[in-house]
Amino acid sequence: MDYWFSEEHTSNVKLSFRIKEEIAHVKSHYQDIYLFETYEFGKMLVIDGTVQTTIKDEFIYHEMIVHPPMLTHPQPKRILIIGGGDGGAAREVLKHDPEEVHVVEIDRDVVELSKKYLRELSSAYQNPRVHLHIENGVEFVKKERNFDVIIIDSTDPVGPAAGLFEREFYESLKASLNEGGIITQQCGTPFYHPEEVCKAKNTLGKIFRYVKIYLAYIPTYPSGMWAFVMASDSPIERRRSCGFKTRYYNDEIYDSSMVLPNFVKEYCDNYRD
Amino acid sequence: MDYWFSEEHTSNVKLSFRIKEEIAHVKSHYQDIYLFETYEFGKMLVIDGTVQTTIKDEFIYHEMIVHPPMLTHPQPKRILIIGGGDGGAAREVLKHDPEEVHVVEIDRDVVELSKKYLRELSSAYQNPRVHLHIENGVEFVKKERNFDVIIIDSTDPVGPAAGLFEREFYESLKASLNEGGIITQQCGTPFYHPEEVCKAKNTLGKIFRYVKIYLAYIPTYPSGMWAFVMASDSPIERRRSCGFKTRYYNDEIYDSSMVLPNFVKEYCDNYRD
Repeated sequence: MDYWFSEEHTSNVKLSFRIKEEIAHVKSHYQDIYLFETYEFGKMLVIDGTVQTTIKDEFIYHEMIVHPPMLTHPQPKRILIIGGGDGGAAREVLKHDPEEVHVVEIDRDVVELSKKYLRELSSAYQNPRVHLHIENGVEFVKKERNFDVIIIDSTDPVGPAAGLFEREFYESLKASLNEGGIITQQCGTPFYHPEEVCKAKNTLGKIFRYVKIYLAYIPTYPSGMWAFVMASDSPIERRRSCGFKTRYYNDEIYDSSMVLPNFVKEYCDNYRD
Repeated sequence: MDYWFSEEHTSNVKLSFRIKEEIAHVKSHYQDIYLFETYEFGKMLVIDGTVQTTIKDEFIYHEMIVHPPMLTHPQPKRILIIGGGDGGAAREVLKHDPEEVHVVEIDRDVVELSKKYLRELSSAYQNPRVHLHIENGVEFVKKERNFDVIIIDSTDPVGPAAGLFEREFYESLKASLNEGGIITQQCGTPFYHPEEVCKAKNTLGKIFRYVKIYLAYIPTYPSGMWAFVMASDSPIERRRSCGFKTRYYNDEIYDSSMVLPNFVKEYCDNYRD
């Protein structure tokens, strides 16, 4: 018999995946977490009904949330990842040979499930330079400082991650950054939710001198057009070349991903909150 | 009661749209054609189970299949569209003020339905410079010549459009082009079917001196990552600026859409048929 998992992209559109097996289902303190084995995408992590990552296309998301900010910074040594409990972002950060990577994940169950079932991503935790903190990211950045790059790899701005899209949080991030520091955040799809993307850009633009949206093709996310935002007080431009093998990112993509279709550009130009 | 239309993107993935109303259903001589009113995407044309176009996102496909080749040509006067019976590509071509636009659509019912229900696209047919031919494109290009730009806006390489992806057809196209002429073709998603994209590029590369793949975000197509290919005996570069309002395309997108993720580039570099 066929068993499908469907994610509602809007109340009128859904994307469905044929499931081979439900590997795990955990109702954590914060979230409802499923791990499926799918036919098309391999293992798939689903939180509160939303696809977070799949073995087949996770390289796109993780390369694109990590390499652009890391290659913008001239010499990133101390990296903070907020969210990212699956370990995928930490894995990519390690390719840049940093001194310390701190992963601050609020939900221990996400980390435990990933360690057990998503080794392709969670292998990063075996590296002694990776430090895991099971903690609220909002609280963590109030006390910890001196980061070169901060990567906010969270769920969407509803549920436990809502605070990660607020001005107050962005101000703490700024205070936690070294000079020349840079932050990046996944911020949704400009196709269905241009207001979320533009709000993130706008709020960051009140605190940082330079802010840029960039895009990547992510087949398992709503509309397939996904946005990230980088913010810094230093100009956002590529300062180094990518010196290792990648599957999606390349140095030409750094610039091309920042070229926005007119409908996105115009929405953001006209956005006021 | 809920009524949904689902398209199988692969046998293990499907995208579903909530339907307000079935506007029309025609079994034509060639294809099974539905026109739906959907909640999210407005009117939607479906042929043989595959979404062809929707009112909400058709601007992306039609701008991207038309403006890159039209702005590559220094002075496109005589344009041929093969397929494109809905009229959307012709509408965009008219913005470049050409002398003649020939639309060669094999299926009269696609044109009739579009004229009746998809006025946003089919308005192009009212322009006296647009000439409609209900005819097989493969036969048409054997006899008609002297085109500056040929746009192949067909269904996928199964069913009636299969011949539009064959070497013999590409050779007829080449013979139908004026000097400096250029062709463009939609060729599928490199995420699920890199072999289709690379085959089109490869076959065209045996006949034309310059061939380039370019990409666009199309939310209603499988994976959202869609490929087009341009081919010409003149270098493929933007020779003119876009002088009218667009919703997706802009002159920066011309170049950025040709920057391919590594997994696409590498697949094509290693592709042999």
